Amino acid sequence: MGAIAEKPAMKYEVEQKFPVDNLRAIEERLGEMGAEIGNERIEVDRYYNHPARDFAETDEALRIRRTGPINRITYKGPRVDKVTKTRQELELPLGEGATAAADWMKLLETLGFRTVSEVHKRRRKARVARQDRSVEVSLDEVTGLGTFVELELVVEEEDLDWARECIADLADELGLAQSERRSYLRLLLEKGGA
Amino acid sequence: MGAIAEKPAMKYEVEQKFPVDNLRAIEERLGEMGAEIGNERIEVDRYYNHPARDFAETDEALRIRRTGPINRITYKGPRVDKVTKTRQELELPLGEGATAAADWMKLLETLGFRTVSEVHKRRRKARVARQDRSVEVSLDEVTGLGTFVELELVVEEEDLDWARECIADLADELGLAQSERRSYLRLLLEKGGA
Repeated sequence: MGAIAEKPAMKYEVEQKFPVDNLRAIEERLGEMGAEIGNERIEVDRYYNHPARDFAETDEALRIRRTGPINRITYKGPRVDKVTKTRQELELPLGEGATAAADWMKLLETLGFRTVSEVHKRRRKARVARQDRSVEVSLDEVTGLGTFVELELVVEEEDLDWARECIADLADELGLAQSERRSYLRLLLEKGGA
Repeated sequence: MGAIAEKPAMKYEVEQKFPVDNLRAIEERLGEMGAEIGNERIEVDRYYNHPARDFAETDEALRIRRTGPINRITYKGPRVDKVTKTRQELELPLGEGATAAADWMKLLETLGFRTVSEVHKRRRKARVARQDRSVEVSLDEVTGLGTFVELELVVEEEDLDWARECIADLADELGLAQSERRSYLRLLLEKGGA
């Protein structure tokens, strides 16, 4: 009684992000690859700092994301890779709706977590098949920052090398270069617009 | 866009707990009052300490409660009353099942929350109507501590006085005296059995 599966829940997120002038050209290439682009969704991410350590220094992140009625909490560990944005990620669903989101924010604040900023974006997603997985491609319009393409795979530790190669290859095929390693949050804070 | 209801989610829990030798006598009195006693459930509460403050000193509590597949997180603020155990409470549902519980424990640990102890109990619940509310009566067998009756109301701030009176009256009617103000966690830690 009381024994629970203590399996390591933490997975790795391998991600590259590219500022682009024109999302239309990327959409066309994705279409040629047979990828379907989903409907636009508005995502609002509220980022928190820790009561006893500075996430900007430790390179961690904790956020509550609201996508319509869907609320999720996400922890991201420090980046472990200089090129891609590889990091541990733990994402958990919260209760649905505005009241649940407000309750969770209240709980985090009561525990001493402080709001850093909010990132607002319009996002459309596509999936590009690669072997038995699919890379998640996000076409983002970020308020105050402009348009970006993000490529992402979430994998177990043993698949990290494959995932990095896979993301790099897809970036080439889409004509994406000059990746941006800073997060949207960091870019907004550096711009002074958050 | 992005605006959410920032209504204060925090309610107050007014509670009194009584060690009893014999739960059977209480059950009979509850039956005479017309209260129905629910099935036994096993509750496992894992308590955490904060990464930067000592909840034993600040008189706060944070726990994950597992009742079968149901998982909940609960924050309790400092007691604000010397007789009853009146305190702010914020309780939020988590995802269901053992994996979700393990994921939440992993998240709390990653954020620097440390496990203090677990409290295991068999609990049966009854409800006793009082005006337009009902008092929650819990008949508890706590591993390592014995048997207890808990009386609880969760109310808004303006109903605190009424709730305290209501709990005291019901305790009288049930023949309960000599309340125990310490939590099960505290009792277990003091006993050295946690």
